[in-house]
Amino acid sequence: MPVSLRDAWIRERRRDPNRTQMHYARNGKITGEIAFVAQREKLDPEFVRSEIARGRMVIPANICHGNLEPVAIGINALCKINANIGNSAVASGIEQELEKVKMAIQYGADTVMDLSTSRQLNETRRAVLELSRVPVGTVPIYQALEQVGGEAAALTPELVLEVIECQAKQGVDFMTIHAGVLREFIPLVFKRLTGIVSRGGAIMAEWCFKHEKQNFLYTHFDRLLEICKTYDVTLSLGDGFRPGCLADASDRAQFAELEALGKLTLKAWEHDVQVMIEGPGHVPMDQIPMNVEKEIKLCHEAPFYVLGPLVIDCAPGYDHITSAIGAAMAGQAGAAMLCYVTPREHLGLPTLEDVKQGVIAYKIAAHAADVARHRPGARDRDDAMSRARYAFDWKKQFELSMDPVYAQKLHDETLSGEDYKKAEYCSMCGEKYCPMHLTHQLKDTAAGAAKTPCKRGTGKNAGLARKRRVTA
Amino acid sequence: MPVSLRDAWIRERRRDPNRTQMHYARNGKITGEIAFVAQREKLDPEFVRSEIARGRMVIPANICHGNLEPVAIGINALCKINANIGNSAVASGIEQELEKVKMAIQYGADTVMDLSTSRQLNETRRAVLELSRVPVGTVPIYQALEQVGGEAAALTPELVLEVIECQAKQGVDFMTIHAGVLREFIPLVFKRLTGIVSRGGAIMAEWCFKHEKQNFLYTHFDRLLEICKTYDVTLSLGDGFRPGCLADASDRAQFAELEALGKLTLKAWEHDVQVMIEGPGHVPMDQIPMNVEKEIKLCHEAPFYVLGPLVIDCAPGYDHITSAIGAAMAGQAGAAMLCYVTPREHLGLPTLEDVKQGVIAYKIAAHAADVARHRPGARDRDDAMSRARYAFDWKKQFELSMDPVYAQKLHDETLSGEDYKKAEYCSMCGEKYCPMHLTHQLKDTAAGAAKTPCKRGTGKNAGLARKRRVTA
Repeated sequence: MPVSLRDAWIRERRRDPNRTQMHYARNGKITGEIAFVAQREKLDPEFVRSEIARGRMVIPANICHGNLEPVAIGINALCKINANIGNSAVASGIEQELEKVKMAIQYGADTVMDLSTSRQLNETRRAVLELSRVPVGTVPIYQALEQVGGEAAALTPELVLEVIECQAKQGVDFMTIHAGVLREFIPLVFKRLTGIVSRGGAIMAEWCFKHEKQNFLYTHFDRLLEICKTYDVTLSLGDGFRPGCLADASDRAQFAELEALGKLTLKAWEHDVQVMIEGPGHVPMDQIPMNVEKEIKLCHEAPFYVLGPLVIDCAPGYDHITSAIGAAMAGQAGAAMLCYVTPREHLGLPTLEDVKQGVIAYKIAAHAADVARHRPGARDRDDAMSRARYAFDWKKQFELSMDPVYAQKLHDETLSGEDYKKAEYCSMCGEKYCPMHLTHQLKDTAAGAAKTPCKRGTGKNAGLARKRRVTA
Repeated sequence: MPVSLRDAWIRERRRDPNRTQMHYARNGKITGEIAFVAQREKLDPEFVRSEIARGRMVIPANICHGNLEPVAIGINALCKINANIGNSAVASGIEQELEKVKMAIQYGADTVMDLSTSRQLNETRRAVLELSRVPVGTVPIYQALEQVGGEAAALTPELVLEVIECQAKQGVDFMTIHAGVLREFIPLVFKRLTGIVSRGGAIMAEWCFKHEKQNFLYTHFDRLLEICKTYDVTLSLGDGFRPGCLADASDRAQFAELEALGKLTLKAWEHDVQVMIEGPGHVPMDQIPMNVEKEIKLCHEAPFYVLGPLVIDCAPGYDHITSAIGAAMAGQAGAAMLCYVTPREHLGLPTLEDVKQGVIAYKIAAHAADVARHRPGARDRDDAMSRARYAFDWKKQFELSMDPVYAQKLHDETLSGEDYKKAEYCSMCGEKYCPMHLTHQLKDTAAGAAKTPCKRGTGKNAGLARKRRVTA
């Protein structure tokens, strides 16, 4: 999409007091962004408008994010995935983080979040926004905390709102806001096995504790909404009390916060501010459908944006897999966006390769959810792959793969060379044993017998061919 | 378990005409094997005996497999995983295959299958049986096919039964037998996108086609049962018509065969022969519970042994993940054993590293199923891991991991050295931002306020501490 096209749409809005997609949708307008995503999703634009108007779909599209290609997130769109990048005090820098953004987008991330907590926060974010044509999210409390030297108690509502506005002006499309970490809920986490595992959640809990006051993101929510309306920042209402282990899943702390987020959703919608709801975490498989149903109910169908969930706790090094299982199931149950987890989860800051592995695991989970929910066109790629597989069209198979280079590498390690690109086998079975190759032969034989009617009743396979015609 | 212990149990049986676990169980006996697995599974031995007697659990334990440590497979046991190894015409040899067996067992495979199709079949199998203390399975039709130079039409019932008996004498604990590939079903696969994807299924289909006769594994089933009774070979009734892509999932071919396997199960049980049922394949997530329920119903609760299933077709190179998702869900729905799939699926013969990746992905899936089904003690390891995580006991976390060496490697890449093994952070967040570290501080502060009663009402956190005691 040419940058100038979106520029034109945005220029038209410059005198409007409320520039959110929801605001225009509720006023009956099919914006350029709505038309664009409708085409991407193969949905009727009027349907998309109605979904945005009712809050069941969002298009995180800050008017200041110039090179954005809009994306729809909601239960009636294809399941989306987010990749987190960002430095920490211990590791990484701008160049490395930009490489991660490129890698994430190359392998199919629909959005990215810059979760940097350490050096050059503004510069990193600016560079990410310039580079990224996908929506970009942040957690503004991190920058605010850096500005007060890491002392949560030193945060003030004014400072945080200033940071939020500054990031909104830069073009951040969606922001995680832990406004549901209410003071009265904090004691609920003391009974837990792993307490609070959300950085923002812990920061806000500490602030409330030290000041003996209510969470200012909650008390000053209306001020926040004014900023969101001006720039069309989508709120990603953070799950500060998400469970960090199976034992803590679905506990009172988690659902008390979720209920609070539901109320905040309605408040946001009074101002036509777009909202997503963040979710867990670590959840055993048998609790996943219930978790999604609860969010749909308590948060009035606002899109659910889950982190995993991980379905077991004891496989660090492989948490892209433990969580892809939960993410696929959450997506099947109706979660709209899946925030990836990499192999490095619980162990350290992800590397470039970790980012790739996380993105692919989550493309798999999201695609599996689309297929399971029968989203239109979801299975086309799988069917095309299967036809190519049965036809032994190896080049086509690699093309259709989620990781064409790697698929070909694994194949060519035992059978390299052009000759093998049409071979009716691979090294798993070899030519004699390949069952699809044998199926081809069987079908040819049956077809040969069927085509010679004067031999009916005498040909070896005539009996079967006749039976097949009757059965088909 | 000392080899001599099982020797003693087996010596007692040498005059019995029927040596199957089911036979003894149905006669009220708690065999040594039953007692052994009951202890491993933390189940009551009498309960295990009743499960074996009714066919809902099997213990694949050939009386000739001397060094076997018995394993229970069934819906009321922990979910098990199988690792396939074996050479093909294109790749591998005995030494490499033995390395794979060791690797598979090291990372937790509960059974292994030797699916070799090419050179030195007897020698490979013998070596695997000598090495493996876990149950070993085979697909005898492969060896039979090699003996007739790869010409399926040249197979005879006598030859195949001879091969089966020979492998039984060697000690093979379970055998895949494609007795449900009935002649009348073959035309059903011609409508499919990927035809037949089971080697044994394709071989039997070819034989039926060329001879215009019924599958001899079906017509000579009674002869097969005699061999199984003599050695206690567990039948793994093969899914020759399993679907090789989403488009073919749950089709008539697949369920026609499943129904036939159900009838064969009853026949086998008339002779007290133990039975497992093999299953798919490629199945979209929304069809997985139904597939498992169907097997339970049609096959009279015989243990279901599924291959994956893969939940999408288009991610070769990552099929250990696409299938771990399906396998976890199948296990949750009641599948008893999950046959692994490696990253090399659809591309080539798995290497040693592929075997490791497949086993770990499947340990994850099986464990997730155990947790979701609330199997006794299933969550102990996750809770222990979570406690260690919250306590920042890194060494304990690595110990409890499914891959301790790799978990530590990923951690140490950014924070190596002994000092960091007690660090209350990792390089994801660094010390200032680690939310669990912050939770510790909050709890300490709250506890400190609670412990000083004379400061009640005056200490910063006293209000919250009081509230916590009321809430707890």
